[in-house]
Amino acid sequence: MKHSKNGNMLIAQSGGPSMVINQSLVGAIQEAKKHKNIKKIYGAIHGIEGVLNENFINLRKETYKTLEAVASSPSSALGTVRMKPTPADCHKIFEVLHKHGIRYFFYIGGNDTAETVHIINNEANNSGYPIHCFHIPKTIDNDLRSNDHTPGFGSAAKFVACALMGINLDNRALPGVHISVIMGRHAGFLTAASALARVYPDDGPHLIYLPEKPFTITQFVKDVKAVYKKYGRCLIAVSEGIADRNGVAIAAKFSKEVDSHGNVQLSGTGALGDLLAKEIKARTSISRVRADTFGYLQRSFPAMISDVDAKEARIAGTKAVQAACKGSSSGSIAIKRAPGKTYKAYYERVDLKDVARHSKEMPSKFINKAGNDVTKAFIEYAKPLVGKLPAPGRFKEIKMK
Amino acid sequence: MKHSKNGNMLIAQSGGPSMVINQSLVGAIQEAKKHKNIKKIYGAIHGIEGVLNENFINLRKETYKTLEAVASSPSSALGTVRMKPTPADCHKIFEVLHKHGIRYFFYIGGNDTAETVHIINNEANNSGYPIHCFHIPKTIDNDLRSNDHTPGFGSAAKFVACALMGINLDNRALPGVHISVIMGRHAGFLTAASALARVYPDDGPHLIYLPEKPFTITQFVKDVKAVYKKYGRCLIAVSEGIADRNGVAIAAKFSKEVDSHGNVQLSGTGALGDLLAKEIKARTSISRVRADTFGYLQRSFPAMISDVDAKEARIAGTKAVQAACKGSSSGSIAIKRAPGKTYKAYYERVDLKDVARHSKEMPSKFINKAGNDVTKAFIEYAKPLVGKLPAPGRFKEIKMK
Repeated sequence: MKHSKNGNMLIAQSGGPSMVINQSLVGAIQEAKKHKNIKKIYGAIHGIEGVLNENFINLRKETYKTLEAVASSPSSALGTVRMKPTPADCHKIFEVLHKHGIRYFFYIGGNDTAETVHIINNEANNSGYPIHCFHIPKTIDNDLRSNDHTPGFGSAAKFVACALMGINLDNRALPGVHISVIMGRHAGFLTAASALARVYPDDGPHLIYLPEKPFTITQFVKDVKAVYKKYGRCLIAVSEGIADRNGVAIAAKFSKEVDSHGNVQLSGTGALGDLLAKEIKARTSISRVRADTFGYLQRSFPAMISDVDAKEARIAGTKAVQAACKGSSSGSIAIKRAPGKTYKAYYERVDLKDVARHSKEMPSKFINKAGNDVTKAFIEYAKPLVGKLPAPGRFKEIKMK
Repeated sequence: MKHSKNGNMLIAQSGGPSMVINQSLVGAIQEAKKHKNIKKIYGAIHGIEGVLNENFINLRKETYKTLEAVASSPSSALGTVRMKPTPADCHKIFEVLHKHGIRYFFYIGGNDTAETVHIINNEANNSGYPIHCFHIPKTIDNDLRSNDHTPGFGSAAKFVACALMGINLDNRALPGVHISVIMGRHAGFLTAASALARVYPDDGPHLIYLPEKPFTITQFVKDVKAVYKKYGRCLIAVSEGIADRNGVAIAAKFSKEVDSHGNVQLSGTGALGDLLAKEIKARTSISRVRADTFGYLQRSFPAMISDVDAKEARIAGTKAVQAACKGSSSGSIAIKRAPGKTYKAYYERVDLKDVARHSKEMPSKFINKAGNDVTKAFIEYAKPLVGKLPAPGRFKEIKMK
């Protein structure tokens, strides 16, 4: 297939916001400006919804200062959307791209976003319309295939690690059980990052539960009791997506139980934490049990951005435009890790089919045998992505004679 | 009453941790080292519980490096306690102080802590034992009488403002209704600080509900509908302590309702947010409604400390020791604000009775008439306490022709 070198470009953002998705956006825009074959630069508002409604802004009209201010701000500056397009939608999108002379299409997001790009690219191929279709990776879940890690994860992980560090100090000062509920429906990477909060041997999180390992209330309460006996306190990090042996989410199970008793809907974000706390109170003699659900903070908190993450997100956007301008008709930019002791990332164009649809889970080498903690291998994997963390001080506590 | 100049010192921390309570602690220790009449420096572990159990550490044995690392760490490094001592406890505490030759007693905390110091001081006066009893202010609630503001508030307010800034960007990208539940059972200062997140005219929080104004679900839903109609989204900041006309906490009311239906305990921290979200879903046609409860993060998140707050907390600790060493037998250090356009704080020794027991609420000049927002006067009051905040970027969004 021959590709036209001259044409307009369209870029959009999709799925959950992250702290560095705007770096990828601005990286792509700044790179596009260097290529004379790219004419107008369209930004679609709210992803493909904006494409379908032809709701476009002119990104060439934004000043350097604005672009850089946007780059360092969390969330999706073009707006985002959670929409899986139907085949009919994809056909319509393709028609809109055609109508506006779009020859370069970039869509930033996770595996579902990659799937959308994949379908649109197939549609274009079938019709013979020459367009470069590229996916730019983003997900705090860190679950994209073909990638060592994904932009957005490092910053969210930094927030989670800092949060646990603070909660650990709080819990040490005012002992009890504390549960932190962290994002991740199918992949536990972000919850696992809570382990980076540990500085001293008795620091929490003392227990980490991930969607990759079956969760039972009985074992959970047993684990909590053992930690509480040892330290007089217990810090727990739990993924929102923890599920039982049959893959049924614990949050959903609890919710159903309550429904059948009293018709109470517990669809809010605090439900899982509150109900795990309730189980501990009911099954142990521990009275001080608290739960916090991090919610949007972990993906949108400003001033908590990992430098490495921001830089890599920027490069991913840049590389996508470079690959398209070099003539590659489609693909995704994957982040790989160079072997060796010192952390070093490199970037590869991969096929859309290798990123699209299916996501990946945490490899078993990152999870301990008991299924209630991470391994040293995970710490070594995650540390360089997060960068420098605060170093809390602690008294030596020499007893007064 | 004549005061002995030579003797040991004891310092302890009480109540909920804050991000800068260790600054006050270290400020007092470093200052004490300058006064030759202060001999041993005792740190009580877990406040007066540590005094009662004679669980003391030797704070003179801590290095400069450790002290400074502790000072810049959140939470209470000596451990804390939520304990209102009985008259018998106070007598026992006084006996322990006497036994260890403590002539200087400093206790860092809120109004309940000041009350404890007050009682112990009275006990000492009655017995004729010469001891300097000082309270050092701390509370993220900002509700201490005789103070313009209190150490801990500025940093917690900075966290809340940053959190709302991020959630606002997130909500703008993926519109819907979002509720942030913020600490404050009786005083709304911290929830009010969410208003500092606003940069652009349409930025949230669009609605702010405080414990100082009666809350009704009917008016709440009406307010949300009006904002949603205007902006297509709505960001709400709500104090955990919002209450009805009779002072009954909304969280408690909801909890009771559910109890009578299905025996469900909703004592966890996520309950109020989830249930307000449920009410909006039930009473409007808005489907995307989310709630986040900030929990411990707002009082213990590291690397989110307000410079002004840290500095003032440190000075408050220093001033308490200075006042005691100058011969003042008891008191609390109050932070006042100098009149004039440029922010300037100064410190005054006040009587324990003027800080102890009762707390203060937000003055009505800080709350709008409708009871769903703060005034410009509040913004001017709070801004200098929080310091520099991130400045999120936004596209000019010039439509593509």
